[in-house]
Formats: sequence, C-alpha cells, structure tokens
Amino acid sequence: MTTLPISVSWQADTVRILDQRLLPGREEYLDCRDIEQVFTAIKTLSVRGAPAIGIAAAYGLVVGLGAAAKVSSSEHLMKALNERRDYLASARPTAVNLVWALDRMMSVANSFEDIGAEKLIQCLIQEAETIHTEDKASCRAIGEAGYEVVKRHPRLLTHCNAGSLAVSELGTALAPMYVAHQRGIELHVFVDETRPLLQGARLTAFELGRAGINRTLITDNMAAHVMSEGKVDAVIVGADRVVANGDAANKIGTMNLAILCQHFNLPFYIACPWSTVDLSTQKGDEILIEERGSEEITQIDGHETAEQNTPVYNPAFDVTPHALITGYITDRGLLTAKDLLDH
Amino acid sequence: MTTLPISVSWQADTVRILDQRLLPGREEYLDCRDIEQVFTAIKTLSVRGAPAIGIAAAYGLVVGLGAAAKVSSSEHLMKALNERRDYLASARPTAVNLVWALDRMMSVANSFEDIGAEKLIQCLIQEAETIHTEDKASCRAIGEAGYEVVKRHPRLLTHCNAGSLAVSELGTALAPMYVAHQRGIELHVFVDETRPLLQGARLTAFELGRAGINRTLITDNMAAHVMSEGKVDAVIVGADRVVANGDAANKIGTMNLAILCQHFNLPFYIACPWSTVDLSTQKGDEILIEERGSEEITQIDGHETAEQNTPVYNPAFDVTPHALITGYITDRGLLTAKDLLDH
Repeated sequence: MTTLPISVSWQADTVRILDQRLLPGREEYLDCRDIEQVFTAIKTLSVRGAPAIGIAAAYGLVVGLGAAAKVSSSEHLMKALNERRDYLASARPTAVNLVWALDRMMSVANSFEDIGAEKLIQCLIQEAETIHTEDKASCRAIGEAGYEVVKRHPRLLTHCNAGSLAVSELGTALAPMYVAHQRGIELHVFVDETRPLLQGARLTAFELGRAGINRTLITDNMAAHVMSEGKVDAVIVGADRVVANGDAANKIGTMNLAILCQHFNLPFYIACPWSTVDLSTQKGDEILIEERGSEEITQIDGHETAEQNTPVYNPAFDVTPHALITGYITDRGLLTAKDLLDH
Repeated sequence: MTTLPISVSWQADTVRILDQRLLPGREEYLDCRDIEQVFTAIKTLSVRGAPAIGIAAAYGLVVGLGAAAKVSSSEHLMKALNERRDYLASARPTAVNLVWALDRMMSVANSFEDIGAEKLIQCLIQEAETIHTEDKASCRAIGEAGYEVVKRHPRLLTHCNAGSLAVSELGTALAPMYVAHQRGIELHVFVDETRPLLQGARLTAFELGRAGINRTLITDNMAAHVMSEGKVDAVIVGADRVVANGDAANKIGTMNLAILCQHFNLPFYIACPWSTVDLSTQKGDEILIEERGSEEITQIDGHETAEQNTPVYNPAFDVTPHALITGYITDRGLLTAKDLLDH
C-alpha cells in the first residue's frame, strides 16, 4: 500500500496536493506554501472529491501563517482567518465539504481565540489533522465493513473513482478492496472508464495499479458482457447521497450496473461514509440531478468527438432504487436499506 | 431525405466515397478514378460498414477500365480483373461482404467473357449497380417492415451506426426511422455515443441530423437513466450476425440495452437484412467474439485517457440472447425468433 497515491498531505507547513489534472500521464505534486496556491489547486480541480477538498481547505486555512503568528496579535490573526475562510470557500461554491471543513476550523479558532496567535495556529493545524485523521478512520472503517464482501466476492467491478484520490488513504468503494488486498486476498477489479469525464480510466485504474491490485479497464458498455461471461462476482460503487429509503445518487451509469446485477443475480453494494446518508430526504426522486455542459460529451479533453452543435443530454448522476441495492458498506458497518433509519 | 449522406456512389466512371474518417468534423468525398484509390479508401476505413465496403469494391473492380477496354482483348481484361479482384480482396481480409461482392462480380465476368472487352465492362458496371440497388431495396424493405414499430414507439434509442453510412441509402436500424420521418411521424432518437470507437457520436448523430430527425447524444451509461425518466419507447439496433435460435451478435453494449429494456418493460428490436441471418449456427455461444487492441480504450484519437500499460479488455461485440429480443426487423418482414427458422 506504500505506493497508493496520496491526494492531500501536510508536511513541514506545506499542503502537498497531488495534481489530479495531470493523471494518469504525470504524477506530480503541488507544494502549496501559501493560501493562493491552495485556492488555485481547489478551483482548478487539481484536488477533487468532496472529502479531499475539505481536507485541503482545512490545511489551506493555516498554511503560511506560522511565521506571521510569531509577531501577530490574536485579533489580527482572527481577522486574517475570517478573510481566508471566505476566500477559500469561494474556490468551489457548491462543494459542501469545503464549507463544512472551513466552518469546523473557524469554530475551533473562535473557541481558542484568547490563547495567543502562535498557540492558536498550533490548535488549528491540529484540528486540520483531526479532520484528516477522522476521514482516514472513516475510510478504514468502510474497508473493514466491506472486507467480508470482497473476501466472498473477489472478482469485482467498480465505476467512477471512489478511491484514495477522492477521499483520503483508502477511499470508499475501493477501501474494502485495499483492506482485502492487504490481507492477502487475491482480487481482480474491472474498472468502468466512466464517461464522460473518464474518472475510472484516469484515476481508478491508476490508483489500483499503484496499489498492486489486478485490474482491467473496460468501457462502460462492456459491463453486461463481462458479467455474462461469469467474470464478475459483485459490484461495489460509491455514492454522492443516500436518502432515507436507501435510494442512492451516484455518478451516471451506476443504476445501469445495478440493473445488470439484478439480471445476472450478482450482489450490488454502495460504499459510503455515514456523512453521505441524508435522512432528511425520504426518496430518490426528490434528489435534483445536476446537468452538465454538452462539451463534456461532444469533446474529450478538447478533442471533438461529435459535431459541436449536436443536441446533448448530460446528467451527472443517476439514482439507483434501493430495491436494486444489496447493502450499504459504511463506517457504521454493513447495513441494509431498512437499517439506515435505525442508525 | 435529400441531405442524407451517401457513403458510396458511381458517377461518370468514378467511385465517389464519403471519407468517414473525417466525420463529423468535415464532410469530404474522395473521387476515386483508379483502383489504387478505392483500395486505399477501403484499407484506411474511409468507407466502413460491410455492405458499403462490398459496393465500393464492386465498383472499384471496374473503375478506370473504360478507356483500356476499348483497345484491350477479352483475355487481357480477364487477367486484369483477376488481379484486381485479389488486390481489392486484400484491402480488408476479414470483411465478408468485400469478398462476396468481388466474387459475384467475377462470376458475371466469367459468364460473359466472350462478349468483348468493352461490352464486358458495361455488364460489370451494371452488376455493381445491381448489387448497389439490391442493397438499397433491402434497406427500404427493412424500413417498411419497421415503420409500424416506429409509429407506435416514436421515442427511440439506438446504438453504434447501422445507418446510411454503413450500408446504402437508409441503413438498417435507422431505416424504419427514416421511413417514418418521411411519412411525417414526429420522432426523437437518443444516440449512444458507442465507445470505444464512437460511431454513435461521430456517425449516427451526424446522419440523423442531416436527415432532420430530432436526436440527442448521450454516453452509453446514460441509457438506464433516460429510460427511468420515461423518455424512451423502444430500442432499435442493427446486428452483425443473427443465428438460428435468434441470438444476435452486435456492437459491444447491445446486450446491455436489451437487459435495460427488459427491466423497464420496453420493446427491443434488431434490424438487419436477411443476409445477416446465419441459420448454419445454432446458438449465440458459438459465435467467436473479436477482441481488439487496448489502445482503442486507453486512447481517443491518439489522446491518452489512461496509462498506456493499463490492462484492457476490448471485446468488439456482445451476443444478446433471443429471449431479450422482441422482434427482428428484416427485409422479409417483422419476424420473431421462432419465425427465423421458417424463412
């Protein structure tokens, strides 16, 4: 596991961010020593995946403040932190985890305001590390909860990237695979390339390869064929949101896989942290599906694949009905749809 | 329909071939005045689709021979034709229709050998035109057989390119749509982009647009979502081979759609000429599935989308079991799997 790519880390007052825009062609890290660099990394998608963005922002709030803190008053520091919070929050206005992490940092800042600037910085760095550690622990708990699933079903198929690159350390959908691999289970993962943005080809195939897990890249429309050939035991994917009845919104193409699993009598699992479960929404049809630009489909990295005036439909997510979901691999254990409401 | 692109035509001793390699960016025609130009057009995939290749080769056999025939003996001409036959057949050795069309031309040449060189050329041009006309008639018959299907189910989804560009005039899967459109039926077609080679994005979206048919391009993994939204009434696709029990080999991703149709209770049709029905093969599992190169998945037109050493599985076709196929739209009418053996 030593070669698993690390999306965000904190080293000697520097936020080190893997520049995911360059993957899989180049594996380069951005060493962000000031807040502007962190802002740019978030805004330009060098770092992506909700939890990873939150962690980068938490560290970003305090990066480069160490020297200034030695000669600064608490009052000056708080003013600077508030400005920094708003600045970073504006990098990706719709990213829920970004604001969540920044606000958690600011509530610590507000509660320890009178301990002196230097000490406050230390507390904030510690809080960012706690956020990071909690995320790692959550991923590891998901990995543990899904270990038996992978042990029983070692030939898997996954979609999009719900791995180390989107989260921290083990990821969500990939966490059970990493844990099983660490424990010597021989596994194989079919990786859907995941059009239109190719997160499977660019990121999942890359990070599974780095971890030494056998994987085979396919186009999204090959899943039925590989299942018909008996090459897949189960599907595990991530989720952007799981609602009270168990319906799950995830990257477009997820429902397709769930229907194929039902047809071929294969188990279909959603892996996600409990923070993704939204009990305030009752059913999947209440989830608004984001539609994205047509150029994601008519172009690939600027290369035209269709006439640019072709009418396009580009829903970013679909909603898989709970009836098609075998189980939810969470940091609170392996749950069924009925269990969700009891937790 | 006047703007439907014409893949191959014969005009004033010239084989005019639409250069499909440039689509959809540029709509340019190659005017082939000698056999080498036709050979190159076939070899480099300027013309593709089994019937279209056969038609191009039939014309190619005689292109540029007119002037020579006036001063040539029948014997010399037959020698030249035999050499030309072998030369063109080598352009794409696995294309069944290529050899079929050339051999049909040669059997005419052999039967009329003694009528003089100039007259023989006329007979051969006529035979090539007959092959072309028969293909058009077959497409039109498919269009008629599927007209009622489209009338009842005007919101369609299709996969790959089984249209004018692959065949002649109306195509196969698209023929019923063109016929219905000509008769004033309001229809809408979702077009799967069809990874890895993007025939849907590059060709089907293009030719439906030229014909004035409403179409919307989606990625392959969006089909389940658009069906779940109630936006699709039926799926019509082509076939590369239909065997005796009705199992159908077609572009990878076809079986995926058939399973989705069963899930959403939508009819799923295969459209093909009778020449695609292979009654000598009993079941789909006897069909050998061609595997293609990994670079089709790790690159898009030379642009890298995954690490080049990523293990890849690239089956070009899948086989849809007959139990998932509602009907076969053929030039012998709209048939069921049971009907196939009776024809």
